[in-house]
Amino acid sequence: MASPENVNILFEPEAKKVQTPKGTTIFQAAKDAGVAIRSECGGKGLCGKCRIIVKKSEDVSELTEPERKHLSKIEIDEGYRLACQAKVLKDTVVVIPPESSSEFRKIQITGKERFLEPKPIVKKFFVVLPKPTLSDIRPDYERLLDALLQVDKFGHLEIDYDVLKGLSDTLRRSNFKTTITVWDGHKIIAVEPGDTSNELFGFAVDIGTSKIVGYLVDLATGKTLDIESLENPQLAHGEDIITRITFAIADPKNLKTLQNLAVEAINKIINEACKRTKIDPNKIYEVVVVGNTAMHHLFLGIQPKYMALSPFTPAIKTQLNVKASELNIGISPSGIITVLPVIAGFVGADAVADALATGICDSSDISILIDIGTNTEIFTGNSEDMLSCSCASGPAFEGFHIKHGMKAVTGAIEKIRMNPT
Amino acid sequence: MASPENVNILFEPEAKKVQTPKGTTIFQAAKDAGVAIRSECGGKGLCGKCRIIVKKSEDVSELTEPERKHLSKIEIDEGYRLACQAKVLKDTVVVIPPESSSEFRKIQITGKERFLEPKPIVKKFFVVLPKPTLSDIRPDYERLLDALLQVDKFGHLEIDYDVLKGLSDTLRRSNFKTTITVWDGHKIIAVEPGDTSNELFGFAVDIGTSKIVGYLVDLATGKTLDIESLENPQLAHGEDIITRITFAIADPKNLKTLQNLAVEAINKIINEACKRTKIDPNKIYEVVVVGNTAMHHLFLGIQPKYMALSPFTPAIKTQLNVKASELNIGISPSGIITVLPVIAGFVGADAVADALATGICDSSDISILIDIGTNTEIFTGNSEDMLSCSCASGPAFEGFHIKHGMKAVTGAIEKIRMNPT
Repeated sequence: MASPENVNILFEPEAKKVQTPKGTTIFQAAKDAGVAIRSECGGKGLCGKCRIIVKKSEDVSELTEPERKHLSKIEIDEGYRLACQAKVLKDTVVVIPPESSSEFRKIQITGKERFLEPKPIVKKFFVVLPKPTLSDIRPDYERLLDALLQVDKFGHLEIDYDVLKGLSDTLRRSNFKTTITVWDGHKIIAVEPGDTSNELFGFAVDIGTSKIVGYLVDLATGKTLDIESLENPQLAHGEDIITRITFAIADPKNLKTLQNLAVEAINKIINEACKRTKIDPNKIYEVVVVGNTAMHHLFLGIQPKYMALSPFTPAIKTQLNVKASELNIGISPSGIITVLPVIAGFVGADAVADALATGICDSSDISILIDIGTNTEIFTGNSEDMLSCSCASGPAFEGFHIKHGMKAVTGAIEKIRMNPT
Repeated sequence: MASPENVNILFEPEAKKVQTPKGTTIFQAAKDAGVAIRSECGGKGLCGKCRIIVKKSEDVSELTEPERKHLSKIEIDEGYRLACQAKVLKDTVVVIPPESSSEFRKIQITGKERFLEPKPIVKKFFVVLPKPTLSDIRPDYERLLDALLQVDKFGHLEIDYDVLKGLSDTLRRSNFKTTITVWDGHKIIAVEPGDTSNELFGFAVDIGTSKIVGYLVDLATGKTLDIESLENPQLAHGEDIITRITFAIADPKNLKTLQNLAVEAINKIINEACKRTKIDPNKIYEVVVVGNTAMHHLFLGIQPKYMALSPFTPAIKTQLNVKASELNIGISPSGIITVLPVIAGFVGADAVADALATGICDSSDISILIDIGTNTEIFTGNSEDMLSCSCASGPAFEGFHIKHGMKAVTGAIEKIRMNPT
């Protein structure tokens, strides 16, 4: 078989050159090359948001029905096309106008912090073990347990299997002086040479439909050391939840793709925050993840299909604790990823975090809490009982099926006028 | 770089043709091709057991010092060489005499069984869940828990993460009729469509230094359904424990190699037993593994180095439970591999199993128990206290550093004479 003929696309204003087989849509070629073009429907010709300008109309395929529907006559004359419809036929130049770039979304990641006394679920203990001798032949693990029991009270203790595998070498590398990390008072999740007891970090992650934000926290002081965020890279497979769930249902591989995208983004966020603060990611032992129920399921690789169909049941609502290496999260390999509980199909772990963080669930006063995002959740109640509900809202603001809505990208605020009088 | 010149070896009596780079030792060429040649030292010229016959002496390299030491003049004249010393220079024919074949070892795998009332740690529950409706929107997992609590008493229950991932699809595939497997009264390790409650199997494995034996057990009746065994494939890296530990220490990759060999052999044994009994390996939920302390560490991929050095401390003696998929054991993926506790560096989990199986640790009488193997363990005591010790014995019987010892291979018993008077 002859290999397909390739053509070149120059994407402006990035000036990025991309080679792609002749006949590929501009949207697909951009996606393959990592050039971000806005899309709400994932490239199906439904949303009309992937507008780009082609300099020479003869370089691409003819106008399609969806394009005639979404573009005005003036726009068509100016060379506007939908990237998901126009197939590239020869070398060409494509301009991505600011409103179609999904790169420059502004993300609000700071706010008012409520101080909380840290009560970390992971604790570190520095111990010096007596060395084995012919009159003290206790195995390494039992030697470690005996030392731990001398510094604190524990019930039944167990050790992570991967930590056990390296235990003997670690102990001898540091002359039997070692720091042990215990999760939830019963599980040994790290054994490190020497005294590392002052390096105990946690990470909090909020997976939003549109953005992912991470907070690096010193678990000894409770202080937030760094904040980092990224657009949710799942956006390439649909801006709204239903499009993404539809993509996940189509093929089990797609579910894995969406999970990997979330995991990779979280790892990038962790690495960036750690680089800036000069903290070793291996000294993070606990990550708490929240997100709406769809993000929760996609992050965990759980089939989200039945959430999208009546009666909209999630697979699970209970809190989950999963080993970091099982989820490929790049922290201490046997560290624990805790995913907060969800409430229902459309009231997720992010809403639970809202209620916990504001403390309205502990107050005797009746309060109301509104979290505006791609979905908006509203809570009301007090420490005795709480009610919650949720509704899609992002599309209303951001222009899904609405011609003049748009995201918080460059151009959304055209002008600010201040009146000094 | 020119690729190295290859030569052909024909191994007799197997008539197996092997191609290998010129200059390779016959031992290495045989190992690469899966042709079994006996060796106790792993190919270092120390044991003198890898004796083979080369038809034409000019086909291989010259006699070495170890060969002059281990072979008599008559043997040398007959073409005897040590496979680990002779390097092949041109196409040749190599005869493996019966005493050097490590393939035909006789394995004793049956014996007297003591009947035990089965008390399996895994239990199955068939439940029919009410389907979700708009007035019953419980998530799938919580729906499952509620149904489980109606059929039996449980404390805190949790679900294996991999089982959770497939839960929603499994429930709907069987119209919400499902069989749940619970390990140790608290962990859900399998959820299967339909009623599979009559298929509940376990597997017991004894990893010996020389042989691995497996027993397929029906956990409902306690009946042993099949027995299968294999030579321990780690033999290729040394027949005795110390040679194998030395190999494991030399490179972390070697430890992984030894672990993989044990795992592959166990999987072969499981598959063979399941094929013969027409049982699905996915219906095995629990494997109990025993072995001496070195086999225990190698199977788990734990550094065995410090067991071989004074004061001979193992890494752990406590019983371990590891998820099947973490160890790549081919049973129900979230099934549990339980490795029995060891007592000390040279009294292992196999000896613990002896004491448990015979019941001498429950008796008020003083008994003695002798387990003769590559190592021999002796127990004495009663239900109040027990003493144990161990010593290498296989080499004494099998000829490590002893010219006339040999393994239980063809030729070990030359003649049986019965005297009818």
